[in-house]
Amino acid sequence: MTISETAAFLKTLDRVLILTHVRPDGDTVGSAAALCRALQDLGKEAFLLDNPEITSTYAPYAAPYRAPEDFTPAYVVAVDIAAPGLLPENAKRYVNSIALCVDHHPSNTGYARHTCLDAAAAAAGEIVYAIIRELTPVTPAIALPLYVAIATDCGCFQYANTTADTHRIAAELMALVDVSAVNKALFRTKSKVRLAMESRMVADMELFDADRVVVMQIPLALREEFHATEADIEELSSLAALVEGTDCGITLRELQPGTVKISVRSGPRVDACAVCTMLGGGGHRAAAGATVQGTMEQVKAAVLRAVAQATEG
Amino acid sequence: MTISETAAFLKTLDRVLILTHVRPDGDTVGSAAALCRALQDLGKEAFLLDNPEITSTYAPYAAPYRAPEDFTPAYVVAVDIAAPGLLPENAKRYVNSIALCVDHHPSNTGYARHTCLDAAAAAAGEIVYAIIRELTPVTPAIALPLYVAIATDCGCFQYANTTADTHRIAAELMALVDVSAVNKALFRTKSKVRLAMESRMVADMELFDADRVVVMQIPLALREEFHATEADIEELSSLAALVEGTDCGITLRELQPGTVKISVRSGPRVDACAVCTMLGGGGHRAAAGATVQGTMEQVKAAVLRAVAQATEG
Repeated sequence: MTISETAAFLKTLDRVLILTHVRPDGDTVGSAAALCRALQDLGKEAFLLDNPEITSTYAPYAAPYRAPEDFTPAYVVAVDIAAPGLLPENAKRYVNSIALCVDHHPSNTGYARHTCLDAAAAAAGEIVYAIIRELTPVTPAIALPLYVAIATDCGCFQYANTTADTHRIAAELMALVDVSAVNKALFRTKSKVRLAMESRMVADMELFDADRVVVMQIPLALREEFHATEADIEELSSLAALVEGTDCGITLRELQPGTVKISVRSGPRVDACAVCTMLGGGGHRAAAGATVQGTMEQVKAAVLRAVAQATEG
Repeated sequence: MTISETAAFLKTLDRVLILTHVRPDGDTVGSAAALCRALQDLGKEAFLLDNPEITSTYAPYAAPYRAPEDFTPAYVVAVDIAAPGLLPENAKRYVNSIALCVDHHPSNTGYARHTCLDAAAAAAGEIVYAIIRELTPVTPAIALPLYVAIATDCGCFQYANTTADTHRIAAELMALVDVSAVNKALFRTKSKVRLAMESRMVADMELFDADRVVVMQIPLALREEFHATEADIEELSSLAALVEGTDCGITLRELQPGTVKISVRSGPRVDACAVCTMLGGGGHRAAAGATVQGTMEQVKAAVLRAVAQATEG
């Protein structure tokens, strides 16, 4: 579906429930909140399904739109969700009745009845912005979560997915709302626990493949030692991508004994999406993830094998 | 002078030497390089005065425009230089003959014959961009150093000085030139030495004033221990501004025994410019600096006293 078709389709809906993905990030939450507000501004009933994994970082953006317990949706919309496997537990009952998915992941499986996909968009928030512009005036209450969606998914305009359009949209949103406090909170604030964990991850990092591949680890023990919250750990996987001389940063995070979440950030030489697809996950060419069964050592070996296969030259 | 007046004035000049400031950053180098190229594109002789303190990070942007040894300028232009004291040693001979200064520092002393000042600009590069647009087509060779100027001075669109205009200009520059490699190199790459130094600075940081003020130190000994280059240390002062719960991040860097460079990054409660002005320096309300004589301990005490005086509530 094009932007215009999607906007026209949304106009025909009411009693809409909007879904976000597991381990919700700024893009899924911000895009869902903005879309929800726009639908409400059109006079429709619209809510976000509660996401039990939401962290304190993003919870304030979802809170105003939380669905009441007794809400029975007529239509379900998924935002920034590439595959049914990324639906939170409480959303799985809707898996076969999702009317619309708005997404920017090239790996989107097409599980929804209708899909509005733009793989060139840095964030689902860019697509949602284009849709909302055809529906209703963009108010500050819509602009703020959209800015969060877009800025978080492009690393505050640092990642290679950032385009001239990303900046143009940011300029339009910033004309409506002051984002300086949001930028400070999201991009220029680290808890003391997080700073200490980063120091340890740097001290313990390992280099492979002629020092071009770096592996950092977040074992459960590290998390427990520092009494780290989920917000302390959020986006810690971006640290591995910083190490000079490397072009493939791998972060292994032990979710529970025997289950490891891997995050891969890569330069052009390594296809992160291919690496993670081999391990049952997916994502973008330069940033992808997967959840793998095994010990930290076993998963590290598996991901290094996958990287070797997904490497050019 | 307005943008148009400055453009008109530049059209009348030839044999132009462009100056950058001590400890040159991306804004002074990128703005100077872009302006130099624009003047050359107009058929004029224009060069950058060699800046002996330039680091490997920014040297490539200045290199194509370096003045030949025997170049005798008819006009001298200063870019992003707020005060004569910020001229490099080899530029001091021009201190009384600077025809034009293009700057965005509110503390500019007005030392040049003409000054084009816009204190609302996030970077001198924004002003230089506006001037160049009235002079000559913006080519990729102009767009790249301008992007570097603007993106570095607003922390890649994270700092509070970022405006909708900043994003609009970035969008226009990104339409001309691919900045993904620049973003990766400038904002998402840290040397192993730098990562190790950051870990040490975090481990040794001190909190004051009900934990709202954080002080980090870069003693000469730390630098020597890690054999750190100037590029390893560049912008290390941004680290102190990240600590959650604080709104005043102070970095003390020992330049030589008895000489300490202080950098202050602050939230609304503390006026960083007032702090540094008391200590003989200057800058912006949220980011300022000064060079102070004394031991690290003496300078720390002095800056904490100044912070107490420049704090509201």
